[in-house]
Amino acid sequence: MNQQKIAELRAAAAKEGADLSYITDPGHIAYLSGYASDPHERILALFIPSQGDPFLFTPALEVEDAQASSWAYDVVGYLDSENPWEKIKQEITSRYGVPQKLALEKNALTVDRFELMREMFPACDLSLDLTSIVQRLMLIKTEAEMATMIEAGDWADVAFEIGFGAIKEGAKEAEIVAEIEYQLKRRGVSQMSFDTLVLAGANAASPHGAPGENQVRPNELVLFDLGVVWKGYCSDATRTVAYKEPTAFQREIYDLTLKAQLAAQEAVRPGITAAQLDKIARDVISDAGYGEYFNHRLGHGIGTTVHEFPSLVEGNDLVIEKGMCFSIEPGIYIPGKVGVRIEDCLYVTESGCVPFTKTDKTLQVIE
Amino acid sequence: MNQQKIAELRAAAAKEGADLSYITDPGHIAYLSGYASDPHERILALFIPSQGDPFLFTPALEVEDAQASSWAYDVVGYLDSENPWEKIKQEITSRYGVPQKLALEKNALTVDRFELMREMFPACDLSLDLTSIVQRLMLIKTEAEMATMIEAGDWADVAFEIGFGAIKEGAKEAEIVAEIEYQLKRRGVSQMSFDTLVLAGANAASPHGAPGENQVRPNELVLFDLGVVWKGYCSDATRTVAYKEPTAFQREIYDLTLKAQLAAQEAVRPGITAAQLDKIARDVISDAGYGEYFNHRLGHGIGTTVHEFPSLVEGNDLVIEKGMCFSIEPGIYIPGKVGVRIEDCLYVTESGCVPFTKTDKTLQVIE
Repeated sequence: MNQQKIAELRAAAAKEGADLSYITDPGHIAYLSGYASDPHERILALFIPSQGDPFLFTPALEVEDAQASSWAYDVVGYLDSENPWEKIKQEITSRYGVPQKLALEKNALTVDRFELMREMFPACDLSLDLTSIVQRLMLIKTEAEMATMIEAGDWADVAFEIGFGAIKEGAKEAEIVAEIEYQLKRRGVSQMSFDTLVLAGANAASPHGAPGENQVRPNELVLFDLGVVWKGYCSDATRTVAYKEPTAFQREIYDLTLKAQLAAQEAVRPGITAAQLDKIARDVISDAGYGEYFNHRLGHGIGTTVHEFPSLVEGNDLVIEKGMCFSIEPGIYIPGKVGVRIEDCLYVTESGCVPFTKTDKTLQVIE
Repeated sequence: MNQQKIAELRAAAAKEGADLSYITDPGHIAYLSGYASDPHERILALFIPSQGDPFLFTPALEVEDAQASSWAYDVVGYLDSENPWEKIKQEITSRYGVPQKLALEKNALTVDRFELMREMFPACDLSLDLTSIVQRLMLIKTEAEMATMIEAGDWADVAFEIGFGAIKEGAKEAEIVAEIEYQLKRRGVSQMSFDTLVLAGANAASPHGAPGENQVRPNELVLFDLGVVWKGYCSDATRTVAYKEPTAFQREIYDLTLKAQLAAQEAVRPGITAAQLDKIARDVISDAGYGEYFNHRLGHGIGTTVHEFPSLVEGNDLVIEKGMCFSIEPGIYIPGKVGVRIEDCLYVTESGCVPFTKTDKTLQVIE
């Protein structure tokens, strides 16, 4: 449980006049309550009043686990055969009275549930959106959070080592993925932060391609995009390596991507904006004539979720601060030919940044 | 692409007066369009007008993949630096004019996006919810869908075989999970339908526990809950086995769970209701005095998503029909002592049902 962040949320919501906040996103609930769960279509909700104790609302079959977590307040469960919304209404009104202004996570709450809240509390003001308040809360990581994220990054480095070791002629992408995840799970990593990507040759030119039966062939590049969830925090990193000597063109594209990645990474410091960082990397690639092939933003925030605030993208004038954690991941994807992406997540220090992943970024040639 | 289901959706929405339908859920988009993707926080949307051709809206970096899928209509992409909602508005109005009644998936669309639609089309009626229309579309599986689900079930049986083979004294839950997923991925299964559960001893009494360092010990039960995604369709099954001779109490709980599972499975036929099936299994367990330890519904629908409509739960009077696919999964969880769940997903025939998974359900004792 994160008492400090609960207090900050409470204060920020109260400042906007809300007497109750309803947290919907399971990742945000985990961050605040210490209880991590994917409720699927069931209801998991955290209610934080501006006065009084919060409570966690979970499916009945999760109550025991929630109570065993670091969450120190009440856990209220509901059976599949009960109407959860009636129960939520009863709990809220008996604990806090009828709310006057109920703040919601509008980027996570679905419309049908919003309409149920509207029916439950017809006179209540539901206009306040908690999205930016929660994003702000989670944006600056504490020392303890960063220590965990450094460990999560170390696991990504281990994963690269396993993956590079599994490259051999004829190895299928899916086999290399299996090897990486198997070795990590045997060593105690229970979850990847997303489906591991291993893409060989032209397949890597699809930035969201899926690993399959495609085989590694000599003189081709192989792209690895992977990360783990470690003690609730995510890592995310990408390396592209060559299997046997790459062509001059592959090297050109690789070196250009690396130049862009390093230019942005070296520019990270408090005071620069998200959009400026994106532009620094993009200009390197555009100036060389490949701008159209870098068709996504430079990066994204990371923490308890693998993609979070801030977005490093054109138009985002957010000022970078110490303690923010995000990815720098330019890529060049030339359909049917070659795909390269190089990505580190990093944390911002007083004068620069430190990447969470340390695997060498000069082009590695696997023999 | 599923032309027939697109036509059915179009007709159902038009019957309710909608001139445009906006599909939000990535699983439903995959079902209708043939293009499967997790857009994370980016926008993936399928717009189906009651007159004219539909279009798919994706992040720019997915356009090529979407065009390479079985989707036969337009794909419109947006860059991270563009405002996707302005682009959506332009596309809709230039193709179909300003919609009068826009139907939405209210169980998938978030409130912030709903409010953006409201701003874009202030005079448009946004009251129609597509949720039950889409649920209904997906509820009765075609022969082709069932053939794929049978294959997905076969993979779950393979997974049990691998998992049972990995049981030995001192084996950690996480190691057994790693072994199962490794062997499957090597054989061409690219994705599990959820995080594989292997829970030993008292750990299995937490129905949503997480596998970890806990070790398999003699004279304890081990619970496996797993499934794969195969050609876009999910399997989901649970077996509980004993490592060396179980205690009389473990056998009692196991046999009771199996009796409940079989009673419900044997009762499945067109005409019975979801609630009746739940009650049949629940009565077996309650009559033996363990009702309070079966603290979840009997089952859930399955298809392109692992949990979908219908829910087999008290109060759901939905009448079962031929072609529906769902799980039957009673469980008894006595905290700190023992946990048993037995689950098959099945399809409904004219006179009964056929389970997708065939692994023996008499208590297997692994020596």
